[in-house]
Amino acid sequence: MSQDLILNQRFVLASRPKGAPTPENFRLERQALPELEDGQVLLRTLYLSLDPYMRGRMSDAPSYAAPVQIGEVMTGGAVSVVEQSRHPKFHPGDQVVGSTGWQTHSIAKGDDLVVLPAGIPSPSLALGVLGMPGMTAYMGLMHIGQPQAGETLVVAAASGAVGSVVGQVAKLKGLKVVGVAGGADKCRYVVDELGFDACVDHKSPTFAQDLAAACDQGIDVYFENVGGEVFEAVMPLLNPRARIPVCGLIAAYNATDLPEGPDRLSLLPRLLLTKRIRMQGFIVFDDFGDRHAEFLAAMVPWVRDGKVRYREHVVEGLEQAPEAFIGLLQGHNFGKLVVKVSEA
Amino acid sequence: MSQDLILNQRFVLASRPKGAPTPENFRLERQALPELEDGQVLLRTLYLSLDPYMRGRMSDAPSYAAPVQIGEVMTGGAVSVVEQSRHPKFHPGDQVVGSTGWQTHSIAKGDDLVVLPAGIPSPSLALGVLGMPGMTAYMGLMHIGQPQAGETLVVAAASGAVGSVVGQVAKLKGLKVVGVAGGADKCRYVVDELGFDACVDHKSPTFAQDLAAACDQGIDVYFENVGGEVFEAVMPLLNPRARIPVCGLIAAYNATDLPEGPDRLSLLPRLLLTKRIRMQGFIVFDDFGDRHAEFLAAMVPWVRDGKVRYREHVVEGLEQAPEAFIGLLQGHNFGKLVVKVSEA
Repeated sequence: MSQDLILNQRFVLASRPKGAPTPENFRLERQALPELEDGQVLLRTLYLSLDPYMRGRMSDAPSYAAPVQIGEVMTGGAVSVVEQSRHPKFHPGDQVVGSTGWQTHSIAKGDDLVVLPAGIPSPSLALGVLGMPGMTAYMGLMHIGQPQAGETLVVAAASGAVGSVVGQVAKLKGLKVVGVAGGADKCRYVVDELGFDACVDHKSPTFAQDLAAACDQGIDVYFENVGGEVFEAVMPLLNPRARIPVCGLIAAYNATDLPEGPDRLSLLPRLLLTKRIRMQGFIVFDDFGDRHAEFLAAMVPWVRDGKVRYREHVVEGLEQAPEAFIGLLQGHNFGKLVVKVSEA
Repeated sequence: MSQDLILNQRFVLASRPKGAPTPENFRLERQALPELEDGQVLLRTLYLSLDPYMRGRMSDAPSYAAPVQIGEVMTGGAVSVVEQSRHPKFHPGDQVVGSTGWQTHSIAKGDDLVVLPAGIPSPSLALGVLGMPGMTAYMGLMHIGQPQAGETLVVAAASGAVGSVVGQVAKLKGLKVVGVAGGADKCRYVVDELGFDACVDHKSPTFAQDLAAACDQGIDVYFENVGGEVFEAVMPLLNPRARIPVCGLIAAYNATDLPEGPDRLSLLPRLLLTKRIRMQGFIVFDDFGDRHAEFLAAMVPWVRDGKVRYREHVVEGLEQAPEAFIGLLQGHNFGKLVVKVSEA
């Protein structure tokens, strides 16, 4: 089988966004793939994950990961099937997970890939509840949030890939769980389907009061994945010795200018001091990458037994990825956003 | 011995300060002390500790401790000698430590007092290097700062009661230690006497550049006790996975208004996320009160052997306390500030 018959389609970064990304920031390219070298595998993408962190990679501002360069393929995790292999561990037909980008095919080092978790009900879950977002939720909650039964936890984007897992695991640990989500449909789902104790609509003009009413015992764990107005409403409700794992700040990703004054920078250290709060940023694979087995051992049975539920928002076709991603940053998705790139 | 011969002198809070405290916020009163009840002891104050946290107790803004009420004696730790006792554990002549306030005599519950640490070279050290400030330094550094040999630590108020211990213990743990202090005399003392690797003068117009030059490998632990311009100069120098124990924010204690904008509140969570930083406020006796023995076991030998050095700034006479305290908030002291109230 000659490999020059494989024509890859991929999205590269065409330009860096100013504020919210637009379709013009992405460019679809066709590309003939080179021959495999020893240790490499040829992959066909089944599902591409779209996640808020990708907005950071489109900018060249200092961050925790190197930016995507102009003309480079957009970064992203995906589930793929092995088409050809020159790595002893992988064989055609194997399904794998790797950071292989926004493209229909890829050539990857076998050593950079992991096989799908055993017992997974559907391959795409390795990008969601059983993948990076689920592990972000689990590790941040358990190891920084340190939840104690009877405490109150708040998490925003509560119907999303991370928030939904944070809240459900916290419920399993005996906490009172209050979600924040955008709109009545999502809030209903969070309470009725995911089993949160309450969910507050951040689009409501009475959001801050509604959150305070739902958290009548204050907040002991705030799992931070959005920032902005939600964090500001949370701040006065935090209890002494609260913990704040910070995995994302989606509300600020598209911001270009700081808001007008006064300058409240000093208020946050003062809050941390007077209430003896721990606030800690983390990147799941960098900080907890060696605990993947611990995560799967806990989460796979919960998912299989229906104790942790999930919702996927599946978009069909790689060409839809830019529009779906732009919508993700505006909260248009409902559940974990994945692009179905090809059939298994 | 009739107790109505004892005339106590004490400073009460006369009014709440707006901004920096003034002498008018304090009032010296004379008071005849009542008879002892069972379980109580009559104390004569030897040394009164003056510490920045007292500024917080003078305000009724929400904080980690209840404010001093108008007309109440100013709060404060002190070393005292037992004059009379109706508690089985204490006898006249014993020296004890307790939170007995700004006064020449006090009546305390014996159960609220601790005996002076064994092997202490001088009683006043129980208010400094072997007392609350030293324990604040040790616990915050070891349990939140988690210092690793070869890392770089920065601490401000480096010649003061907390900063001097933070830096010296970090040196004993193998870190590079950079202090921040106000003026050439203090900086010289921090390097020459305390053994820090460098000390940067925050009064210099090139302070931020000087700090960056001294921290050429970035900052791994920033022990926060001042806030303000020092924290702002530290922020861009923080390394990934840095730790920031927060024990105080003296630069902000007298602030009445927030500075002009833009509003940079969102920058701190973003910094914590992108650099995966842990920032945590703590109050030593609330969060680490059960570890007093651990502290003394480490620190008493270090002090006795000269491995941790200290400097005291002793003011003579209770009547000097308000002026000395006002100066403390402006950095006028040089070393741990204590008031000698009476002779042992």
